[in-house]
Amino acid sequence: MKKVLFASTALVLTAGVASAEISFSGSANMGLDYGVTTTDETTVKNEIDFDIKGSGETDGGLTFGASLDIDGAHVDSTDSGFLIEDPEVFIAYNGLTLTVGDIGEASDQGGLSDVGFDGIGIDDVAEITDGATGGFGNHDVRVDYAFGDVSVAVSLDSATDDWAIGGSASFDAFTVALGFGDVAGDQHTLLTLGYSAGAFGGHIFYNTDDRVADDAYGLDVSYTTGDVTVSAVYADNGTGNAFGVGVAYDLGGATLAGGIGQNAADDTVADLGISFSF
Amino acid sequence: MKKVLFASTALVLTAGVASAEISFSGSANMGLDYGVTTTDETTVKNEIDFDIKGSGETDGGLTFGASLDIDGAHVDSTDSGFLIEDPEVFIAYNGLTLTVGDIGEASDQGGLSDVGFDGIGIDDVAEITDGATGGFGNHDVRVDYAFGDVSVAVSLDSATDDWAIGGSASFDAFTVALGFGDVAGDQHTLLTLGYSAGAFGGHIFYNTDDRVADDAYGLDVSYTTGDVTVSAVYADNGTGNAFGVGVAYDLGGATLAGGIGQNAADDTVADLGISFSF
Amino acid sequence: MKKVLFASTALVLTAGVASAEISFSGSANMGLDYGVTTTDETTVKNEIDFDIKGSGETDGGLTFGASLDIDGAHVDSTDSGFLIEDPEVFIAYNGLTLTVGDIGEASDQGGLSDVGFDGIGIDDVAEITDGATGGFGNHDVRVDYAFGDVSVAVSLDSATDDWAIGGSASFDAFTVALGFGDVAGDQHTLLTLGYSAGAFGGHIFYNTDDRVADDAYGLDVSYTTGDVTVSAVYADNGTGNAFGVGVAYDLGGATLAGGIGQNAADDTVADLGISFSF
Repeated sequence: MKKVLFASTALVLTAGVASAEISFSGSANMGLDYGVTTTDETTVKNEIDFDIKGSGETDGGLTFGASLDIDGAHVDSTDSGFLIEDPEVFIAYNGLTLTVGDIGEASDQGGLSDVGFDGIGIDDVAEITDGATGGFGNHDVRVDYAFGDVSVAVSLDSATDDWAIGGSASFDAFTVALGFGDVAGDQHTLLTLGYSAGAFGGHIFYNTDDRVADDAYGLDVSYTTGDVTVSAVYADNGTGNAFGVGVAYDLGGATLAGGIGQNAADDTVADLGISFSF
Repeated sequence: MKKVLFASTALVLTAGVASAEISFSGSANMGLDYGVTTTDETTVKNEIDFDIKGSGETDGGLTFGASLDIDGAHVDSTDSGFLIEDPEVFIAYNGLTLTVGDIGEASDQGGLSDVGFDGIGIDDVAEITDGATGGFGNHDVRVDYAFGDVSVAVSLDSATDDWAIGGSASFDAFTVALGFGDVAGDQHTLLTLGYSAGAFGGHIFYNTDDRVADDAYGLDVSYTTGDVTVSAVYADNGTGNAFGVGVAYDLGGATLAGGIGQNAADDTVADLGISFSF
Repeated sequence: MKKVLFASTALVLTAGVASAEISFSGSANMGLDYGVTTTDETTVKNEIDFDIKGSGETDGGLTFGASLDIDGAHVDSTDSGFLIEDPEVFIAYNGLTLTVGDIGEASDQGGLSDVGFDGIGIDDVAEITDGATGGFGNHDVRVDYAFGDVSVAVSLDSATDDWAIGGSASFDAFTVALGFGDVAGDQHTLLTLGYSAGAFGGHIFYNTDDRVADDAYGLDVSYTTGDVTVSAVYADNGTGNAFGVGVAYDLGGATLAGGIGQNAADDTVADLGISFSF
């Protein structure tokens, strides 16, 4: 027997019981990459993410909740990455949210858009990642505050006292995102400027990090006509650069996308596949 | 607080949003076996399978989805087999389905019915399994096509290029299922003929595999009267044979079943338990 | 897209199909402890438990079901304890329930209430735990029977033949819970007397176990006024004692609670946090 969740946000409240619910969402993709998983080789892969979230609200208007991810992936004919991960618990009141758990660092703001259905890794060359410039910290306490088109955040690693702050804002066609963080005394700063008007959009990104010798930067642009979006991205980390172009076709509920480019090791990388949410 | 999924297939569409849903199904059993888990010993066991599936349809009628299994088992007073497994992502259009992930090989068609609530392993003696004749491959790309009472499939292991094809068809009281596959150059062929009319049903199975010296074969029969089904199965792999008889009682929503037989090592095997789906 | 489960116990039956459903429930907490996770240190932590349960009823009135837990936790800036656990399968009829799986031992009856949002470990000093007095057995078959305000249970470890019995009853303002078990020939007995009237409640606990030299005992008391409950607990295991006091504030859907005390090693332990169910 199959049980189907209602694809709406309807909620039946039992009289006299505080509002509480459990909800699910998810996404998945499948496709091919060339050179992304393994240099000079074609790989068949998929990825599935289900998110389970419990949430509610107290009589006084404090909202609360908790979420876990149930994820799976299959790469090159082998199961990989079966995980229950990202345990987060939060409370929120009047735009102020306190989150405890495996959270994103507050300095992780903005960044570049990659190309392809699952990403061919161009943006990672300039962004802070485990592979590129040392990685963000491992924060577990975070406070977010949003007011109008502005949001700010502060986060902390309670074990090491690493910390970060960040924020983003939008005005008219422009967005700006700024992040600053400290990992074991080494500091990093990220700045992203975005522009979006009609069919055209793009970002300029700059990143300086004490843990690496050179500053990194990049830009991406996109143009949408009808159901088709074409995009390009360039990233440079001082010791190498990478670039890619991509096309995405909106199927109305799913997206068919592909990208091709050259990574920082001057190898060709490409992918083609379909992705969707539910 | 307990949240109950609606036990129907109703789906509320939000106007203007493509159809997408997350659904759950599952099954479980509990009971005893003698000689199946451990020779000459009685074992208490249970098994639980929950399947989570997200699916949807694009504006153009392409259906898509992804599924994971969340499974658990408890055997002989010890937890065993807690797994998130079987990540599959598919797209389908007009009866043609493309699946990527941890999929069943296309040559795995037909086969024998085992006896007992959880199976006492008689069918495995003749079928291709890890233990008997080397196992199927580890395929990750599969195409299925169904038209009327006929279905065909092709599958591939993208890492090793192992491949398989298979199909099944039914006409009147008869069914036929045929599978052919190649694992590292060794080929296997499986043929199952089935008959079902009124209270009586049965299958004849034949299997030849380059990886084992002898061909294997078997047959099963069943007879249903009211809520009771009695069945028998025989399997021979050239070096040994096994047989079993079983009874299943349909409780209307659950099934109480037991089986007893002799495995290929001439040891007695039996089980008794209850199973159900939700 | 987000799918929301209906926060009620409504169930739609499809005509002619036996009743079956899959339901979810869960709980979570977040907060700080001092000295509980690590002596003399403050730790930030959270914990999330989701329970998935499939259940149904046969035409003849036999109820059946199976459940798994999907849990996660984050302690001191590190993921910990991601688990799929507690596989249980049960059948029940007329108040009699048979459960197979990773079940609670029948001697685990009554006990003390701890203080704090996640517990500072005072009750463990007197109760049977892995750390204190050797732990309960690892039972996998259990029978429960409930009639009126009385419930009794018998459980067995099918691998070792360890066994236990227990029961509880309430009359007017009083409750009594008694458990008796045998682990590898060593026997343990637990007795809890409880009293609850108006704003006041409390328990007296006594525990004797062949595996430890001394008997253990303890008591807890609580007093509720409006949304606030204050409580205290004392536990002694012959070689040491521990005590704690706590306050819990009912937010209407969530609970803010804290506790402070001294553990059996004479170290200060405390916690403060919020917990909720969904």
